[in-house]
Amino acid sequence: MPTPLPLGSTIGIIGGGQLGRMLSVAASRLGFRCHIYEPGAEPPAGQVAHRVTTAAYDDEAALRTFGQSVDVITYEFENIPTTALDILQDLAPIHPGREALRVSQDRLTEKTFLQNLGLKTAPFADITDAESLEAALHDIGTPSILKTRRFGYDGKGQARIMAPEDAAAALADMQGAPSILEGFVEFSHEVSVIAARSLDGAVAAFDPGENVHSEGILRTTTVPARLTASQRSDAVLIAAQVLNALNYVGVLGVELFVTAQGLIVNEIAPRVHNSGHWTQNGCTVDQFEQHIRAVTGWPLGDGQRYADVVMENLIGSDMDRVSALATDADTALHLYGKAETKPGRKMGHVNHIKRV
Amino acid sequence: MPTPLPLGSTIGIIGGGQLGRMLSVAASRLGFRCHIYEPGAEPPAGQVAHRVTTAAYDDEAALRTFGQSVDVITYEFENIPTTALDILQDLAPIHPGREALRVSQDRLTEKTFLQNLGLKTAPFADITDAESLEAALHDIGTPSILKTRRFGYDGKGQARIMAPEDAAAALADMQGAPSILEGFVEFSHEVSVIAARSLDGAVAAFDPGENVHSEGILRTTTVPARLTASQRSDAVLIAAQVLNALNYVGVLGVELFVTAQGLIVNEIAPRVHNSGHWTQNGCTVDQFEQHIRAVTGWPLGDGQRYADVVMENLIGSDMDRVSALATDADTALHLYGKAETKPGRKMGHVNHIKRV
Repeated sequence: MPTPLPLGSTIGIIGGGQLGRMLSVAASRLGFRCHIYEPGAEPPAGQVAHRVTTAAYDDEAALRTFGQSVDVITYEFENIPTTALDILQDLAPIHPGREALRVSQDRLTEKTFLQNLGLKTAPFADITDAESLEAALHDIGTPSILKTRRFGYDGKGQARIMAPEDAAAALADMQGAPSILEGFVEFSHEVSVIAARSLDGAVAAFDPGENVHSEGILRTTTVPARLTASQRSDAVLIAAQVLNALNYVGVLGVELFVTAQGLIVNEIAPRVHNSGHWTQNGCTVDQFEQHIRAVTGWPLGDGQRYADVVMENLIGSDMDRVSALATDADTALHLYGKAETKPGRKMGHVNHIKRV
Repeated sequence: MPTPLPLGSTIGIIGGGQLGRMLSVAASRLGFRCHIYEPGAEPPAGQVAHRVTTAAYDDEAALRTFGQSVDVITYEFENIPTTALDILQDLAPIHPGREALRVSQDRLTEKTFLQNLGLKTAPFADITDAESLEAALHDIGTPSILKTRRFGYDGKGQARIMAPEDAAAALADMQGAPSILEGFVEFSHEVSVIAARSLDGAVAAFDPGENVHSEGILRTTTVPARLTASQRSDAVLIAAQVLNALNYVGVLGVELFVTAQGLIVNEIAPRVHNSGHWTQNGCTVDQFEQHIRAVTGWPLGDGQRYADVVMENLIGSDMDRVSALATDADTALHLYGKAETKPGRKMGHVNHIKRV
């Protein structure tokens, strides 16, 4: 068993959004302090952190000071510039490690990694120009979807191709960025597994949740998900396989399509995941504490589910419902303290709990 | 219904210990920021607060700056100097109000207040000197206990008088402070009720917990407490009576002795209370969120108990057990991030959960 970080140690978190905020709160329950590194002013995580550095990801001096002030580094998002990681890696351990970031930062690398593990993915092809897109459309067919290889989230950097004549417009949408064409998958529903791996290689998974998206943004996650016992077991095994292949330390989210041909991996996220927020009111140890335990070398905690939960994201004007939600029984509010409500912006979430 | 504080408002918390820390975390879930005022350096609450002021309670300038920066003021301990409150009360609303502080800061005032409400207390007498102590011992008898009227907690400022000849030593222990003699109460066990009252006068109580103390410090609180249905109802009614009499806003703790003659009020605490920590893992809305809801003018939340819980304080060397506790199922750790472990110091607590 590795030596766990002593209580009172400082966890550096790259990114100051709601995931960093909830990680910081979970860290406090275990007696750790958090130091947030975030380019944007007044980050939500800064409201509940011991220390905040406001600096750009190419500010070498700020990165060095941050790295020297912390005992371990983790992150709330995967698109951290490689140059920043090059500086930080000599100053403190980074968990999850760089291999997980390398794989998940690039859709093409990620799909190839998954395929090499023997896991099913949507058909895909590397797109560099109009010719490669034409060839890929010939193989993969339509409808299909063109995505930038890097920096996409919540439906951004994506264009649907319903018929071959949409190809030029879709390619233009990519603005010259390296891209990947993905075939459409016929699926009945999407589920995700939130799983964790500790520093000594132990793996634990939360019960899979069933996700509903709209306009590219997650709306609800429901546990239990509609899965047969063997699908549930497959889902957890896929997550464990990914964790082990990456020699991963921390919490990982795996999105899966449920199809007649089995489970198809949509994508992996090397961090706590929106579809795992239900664990805050359904498990003794939630995904945020589980992640903190893993990256600090603690043993993984008890993630057994004790309630049925529907997690509902509060997006934009959903915030108008907060005062009504505040009086609902068996309903837990989790707001992010963001200064401004904008359409499409995740402002909070609510867990509707049904004790079982 | 009063207008609730808007999301993003700042709650000023006087005192930066573990109660302030857990209040700050609860406030973050509702989208509020906290500003901690605490004389001691590196307060536990500061690790999860938006802002910390480190200044003495007689620092007028610091108090003014603090009061002007917050939208409402609350506190984690009752012994706030009156002079500080005089300055703050003109700058932001203080909840719970000054009457609750006035009553609970002085054991004699508190006992008199409770008696005037028709509630049962231990027999008591005002002690100013050796003569008044001799007269009181004649009335109340021995064993009895001499306590300073103000500033006692966790067994400090108390001396037992087992026989009249102990009187002089006990009085010397008070070091000239105004004191109160309390008769011993024959009780089978102690329970406490954590109850809340909102700005519009609604009252909600958590299920009473049963407390075990040792060396003057709370060791465990167990829910459910051993109470008959009518005792449970009496306990909650007593708390409601106190809340209403004080026109109280926030969470209050009431300690009660269970005796053959009914429930006897031991003391009241105008704040979240150690014996309410079980609510973090037994209720959808815990005592900390309930307090934040009350002082911000929000509706009270759903405090129904969904699990049996034994809350155990981690005191001093109990911290050696943390790594073992971390692997126990149905066990939730809550550590306070205190720099130094000392004998008798509350370092954290753990909730042992049994789903019902």
